[in-house]
Amino acid sequence: MSQGNSGNLAAVARAAGVSVPTVSRVLNGRADVSPGTRERVEAILREHGYRRRVPGRSSSGLLDLVFNDLDSPWAVEIIRGVEEAAHTAGIGTVVSAIHGEAASARQWLSNLRARATDGVIFVTSDVTPPLHAELRRLDIPLAVVDPAGGPVNDVPTIGATNWAGGLAATEHLLALGHRRIGFIAGPKRLLCSRARLDGYGAALAAAGVEADPELIQPGDFYHESGCAGADALLRLDRPPTAIFAASDQMAFGVYEAVRRRGLRVPDDVSVVGFDDLPESRWASPPLTTVRQPLAEMGLLAARTVLRLARGEDIETPRMELATSLVVRESTVTA
Amino acid sequence: MSQGNSGNLAAVARAAGVSVPTVSRVLNGRADVSPGTRERVEAILREHGYRRRVPGRSSSGLLDLVFNDLDSPWAVEIIRGVEEAAHTAGIGTVVSAIHGEAASARQWLSNLRARATDGVIFVTSDVTPPLHAELRRLDIPLAVVDPAGGPVNDVPTIGATNWAGGLAATEHLLALGHRRIGFIAGPKRLLCSRARLDGYGAALAAAGVEADPELIQPGDFYHESGCAGADALLRLDRPPTAIFAASDQMAFGVYEAVRRRGLRVPDDVSVVGFDDLPESRWASPPLTTVRQPLAEMGLLAARTVLRLARGEDIETPRMELATSLVVRESTVTA
Repeated sequence: MSQGNSGNLAAVARAAGVSVPTVSRVLNGRADVSPGTRERVEAILREHGYRRRVPGRSSSGLLDLVFNDLDSPWAVEIIRGVEEAAHTAGIGTVVSAIHGEAASARQWLSNLRARATDGVIFVTSDVTPPLHAELRRLDIPLAVVDPAGGPVNDVPTIGATNWAGGLAATEHLLALGHRRIGFIAGPKRLLCSRARLDGYGAALAAAGVEADPELIQPGDFYHESGCAGADALLRLDRPPTAIFAASDQMAFGVYEAVRRRGLRVPDDVSVVGFDDLPESRWASPPLTTVRQPLAEMGLLAARTVLRLARGEDIETPRMELATSLVVRESTVTA
Repeated sequence: MSQGNSGNLAAVARAAGVSVPTVSRVLNGRADVSPGTRERVEAILREHGYRRRVPGRSSSGLLDLVFNDLDSPWAVEIIRGVEEAAHTAGIGTVVSAIHGEAASARQWLSNLRARATDGVIFVTSDVTPPLHAELRRLDIPLAVVDPAGGPVNDVPTIGATNWAGGLAATEHLLALGHRRIGFIAGPKRLLCSRARLDGYGAALAAAGVEADPELIQPGDFYHESGCAGADALLRLDRPPTAIFAASDQMAFGVYEAVRRRGLRVPDDVSVVGFDDLPESRWASPPLTTVRQPLAEMGLLAARTVLRLARGEDIETPRMELATSLVVRESTVTA
């Protein structure tokens, strides 16, 4: 897995007189390349030792699903969806964790070379370019399940409608009569954080409620930051009557901050989360939240990779599945 | 996967003049069989088309981890442990769910026949005899991760010390001065339910506290039954001051029953769970619970199967890893 591979791709692009993304499109079998360009690029790819995926080649009976870490609360839902699609197709799902470490990723890649795989699904916002280039060189189709909304590139990516989810959560609280609505954000570097915040802002603006910057707290999606953010909000001179946390784990942290102050959800503060993790049903009170269809996202990613493995073309590199509001017992009228 | 396979094993036993468990011990390469018996049984096994595992045969680079359902709250922890052991050994982990359905199990078995595997780990209390016999016929080593404490047989099984866990949880509540301690049990058909209940009873007896049958409620490990059990306990003329639920999910149900009555954990009722699921840290208040080392159980199962795959012998068919009490904020002095 050397840096040279991305260099090779650039060399192919130079030799063919096209851009690197165009070379990628040819490698991925995308339809939006003119026949002449495709032919020229494919000839140079062959010279450089790349193989264009051959339609109808035999299946290895395996699909690889790769996480950064398996302790993500998202993991099991995504495994469920991928396993369902693979199982139906008569294919086994190999689950791996690379812990964001280069050595671990190399070990996985070496395991992968020792056995065949029909395709790889990454669950992460950032597939490292060398890893990506190596999979491309090995002619292994790749899709990304990205609940975090990473930057758009030419890899087929399955996300969720984060902006619409932020909008729906905030509209729900506005409809209950809340006007001071706190927001605990996700990590700034992730596009999904921005999208959820923008959805929140859009709902406030549409309702003619002025956004108050002191009602917006930073967070990192984890429990502790939800607890700290809620604590800061509840200490304000004019505390919010409702808090929208951009992840379920942060919403559970809000519950804890409310409890520590001797207050109650939803009597004193309404709370909305984002994700609909299985445990949001078991929270006390059961959590109103924005559902990300994680299992369906995994299912679609598996189907996409299996289509690529059969040599079929994919229409669009980025698909977003709809989020939906699930109203439970953590929200009441203001 | 016909019923005929277990019949075959009985036929081998009859022909060799030994019991079926002895035939199993020979097949599994166990050391506790006399050399003469082993030779006789192996000869007849060969006649019947069974192959004794060959030490040192080449690895397929894959291990199969099979769940009944992936929506068990245990699933992701066990996957983590198995994946860690397999990853270190340079082996991929194939995760499947068979949904307790014969058709689904057949599909999985057919996928399995189409590719090689070094071994299979089942996460369930009841591996069906036909499935078990078919794996044996295919000469594929098998281990079981069984957090529920199923019946002992000759398959290597990794469990946890359920009785000791029930004892520790109850001793903790007694040490805090509680004397009326409610218990919400697991499903009666599972041995682990009985073991946890017996541990509870043993702690009460050791402290000279008389067991009150009205303080013991039935449950099925799921949220709803914890909520219903706690509701029944809190309606008693002399309600308990503490409730020990035999699973974390039931403990979350206890939280909800307490909340619905306008009471608080731990001020009005102390609560202890069993499992230490990741979400027990995020409960409000964070849950005091008995930790089952699920990831370590998965890790040990993977190592056991890989040892069997190398033709090594296993010393004991059933191993129990220690449970431990994790004290958080849901318990206070009576």
